[in-house]
Amino acid sequence: MKILGKHYRAIWRTAAGAVRVIDQSRLPFEFATIDLDTLDDAAQAIRTMVVRGAPLIGATAAYGMALALRSNASDVQLDDAARILQATRPTAIDLAWALNRMRRALSEVELDKRAEAAFREAEIICDAYVEQCRAIGVHGLKLIRELAKTPGRRVNILTHCNAGWLACIDWGTALSPIYMAHDAGIDVHVWVDETRPRNQGTALTAFELGAHGVPHTVIVDNLGGHLMQRGEVDMVIVGSDRTTAAGDVCNKVGTYLKALAAHDNGVPFYAALPSSTIDWSLDRGSEIPIEERSATEVTHITGRTSAGASVTVRVVPEASPALNLAFDVTPARLVTALITERGVCPANPAALRSLYLDGRAAP
Amino acid sequence: MKILGKHYRAIWRTAAGAVRVIDQSRLPFEFATIDLDTLDDAAQAIRTMVVRGAPLIGATAAYGMALALRSNASDVQLDDAARILQATRPTAIDLAWALNRMRRALSEVELDKRAEAAFREAEIICDAYVEQCRAIGVHGLKLIRELAKTPGRRVNILTHCNAGWLACIDWGTALSPIYMAHDAGIDVHVWVDETRPRNQGTALTAFELGAHGVPHTVIVDNLGGHLMQRGEVDMVIVGSDRTTAAGDVCNKVGTYLKALAAHDNGVPFYAALPSSTIDWSLDRGSEIPIEERSATEVTHITGRTSAGASVTVRVVPEASPALNLAFDVTPARLVTALITERGVCPANPAALRSLYLDGRAAP
Repeated sequence: MKILGKHYRAIWRTAAGAVRVIDQSRLPFEFATIDLDTLDDAAQAIRTMVVRGAPLIGATAAYGMALALRSNASDVQLDDAARILQATRPTAIDLAWALNRMRRALSEVELDKRAEAAFREAEIICDAYVEQCRAIGVHGLKLIRELAKTPGRRVNILTHCNAGWLACIDWGTALSPIYMAHDAGIDVHVWVDETRPRNQGTALTAFELGAHGVPHTVIVDNLGGHLMQRGEVDMVIVGSDRTTAAGDVCNKVGTYLKALAAHDNGVPFYAALPSSTIDWSLDRGSEIPIEERSATEVTHITGRTSAGASVTVRVVPEASPALNLAFDVTPARLVTALITERGVCPANPAALRSLYLDGRAAP
Repeated sequence: MKILGKHYRAIWRTAAGAVRVIDQSRLPFEFATIDLDTLDDAAQAIRTMVVRGAPLIGATAAYGMALALRSNASDVQLDDAARILQATRPTAIDLAWALNRMRRALSEVELDKRAEAAFREAEIICDAYVEQCRAIGVHGLKLIRELAKTPGRRVNILTHCNAGWLACIDWGTALSPIYMAHDAGIDVHVWVDETRPRNQGTALTAFELGAHGVPHTVIVDNLGGHLMQRGEVDMVIVGSDRTTAAGDVCNKVGTYLKALAAHDNGVPFYAALPSSTIDWSLDRGSEIPIEERSATEVTHITGRTSAGASVTVRVVPEASPALNLAFDVTPARLVTALITERGVCPANPAALRSLYLDGRAAP
């Protein structure tokens, strides 16, 4: 999507062959890119959330493997790179999906052709994600069009965390239908959950919606329920870091609370996801490992002073411990439907299986 | 309750006759007091949340009226003071309750005795709040004792915002049973919701629990639902800024989301409140005016740098608007029971009426 009129992806190869990403840890106040030159650069970028979002994590891991093979294309290196990259983030299934796909594609390739093949495969993965996200947008747009049927009616959509193009190379998952609706002239307005503790809503979703020109309002994570009670939310769309075969949705912590409120107020609740986030090996969301991150993400906040300096401040008393679990699981019973690249699908095992006939993730 | 072993109230008169409050806007990193000398001082302290919490707002308003009458004890001044103080915060019913009580008590008093009578009445209000909060603690303690019956079992209690002694002169409402359980040697641990946007959980609840020695962990507002799904919350206790005659509970925004999660996971959800927060004139919580506060509370956060300086940083992009509604309403159907100074009471109109026989607020 666009930043001040210029089209960007969240990861790309430069003319000189470098892998370049937008440093998302500096947004929204600073737009900067980082070149990833080695496996360690890629692993570090994922671990420190320079890049984040399930599809972008998968794409960066794929490029990370290609970077690893550039210096040493051996089987041992292939195994080591996969292990190092897999350990960076435990919850998002796309990471394992992308690494497995790379290994399958590369294991039979001759050593002297592996690095080149790896970069090609990583590019194919990126293009496939973009196409999936575009298809998610097309399917989700129909749902928004339905809500916009009443003339003069603004459609208010609440989203949590960032499942936009920054998370997904381009278009996004949850935000893809919103971009398409906006570009189609539909009057959409987005309630952007701040998304503590890392504030991906304010830092990324508000930034990318604003940069593309989509009307939006930032709210604290506590407010969405009240807005639904007042009838000011027409639909909720979130992303998914891992979806079980039964339709349980693991997404940024706090998603479950919004799903409960949507259910209590008759507001449709959608998770938008490429099939690569579906973990066909799991039925129950409670089996998904939930990443515990540093307590400092809760105790400290970084922002800009009025003088323009980036400053980190402590907000929790020094004597008080904090716990920081990054995801929660929304049970399928609270999910109105899943918006996938193959269409809108009820969140239940039979519907998911019938959409992905052979039970294997596409593409 | 205690700060480093010394007992404090949240508002008191000094030996010299000044009205002194703890400046809660500077907590948790700085403990400072402010003397209120005039009506404007009191109104400003409420408006800017130097003092906050339904009972403390009521008490400060009562003292504010006394301060107003010290310079001019006329009926006109009585009316003006009540109007100015009433306009400071729209949601908490204690404010109106305290002002009405003061006017009733003072209107028949001769002018030259009014100021003195007003200070006396304000002190009676404070003492009555403290006694109510103590009684709430005694009744709530029984509920905690019940959960603690299994030997060696830690009782995990989640609370939202600050309904502790800082909000209530002493003891607190939601925290009163917790202090009593801790002081009685019961192994209690409190999950402290950060409570965006003003962070009363981290700034006040974590501070006062820590200062008194109660084990606690700070979490973002997004995490409570997941903790309940994992069985790590045994009960929820919150305060109430206004409770309808039907048992709907208006409290800090986000409370409703926690009530939904508690209901979904079979976790008992209690609101602890003195009867002064009951608005007998309202049945439905949706009729309660919800205060809209400045968007800067969402877009900016104040904390401490590692060098110890208090710094305010912007966290929301400058081009993104924000909406800041301070309260929400939890419908009675999600409230397991109300913990009042007269006992634990199901959240329904008949039970509330029978507890407060004549339908009028006590004391």
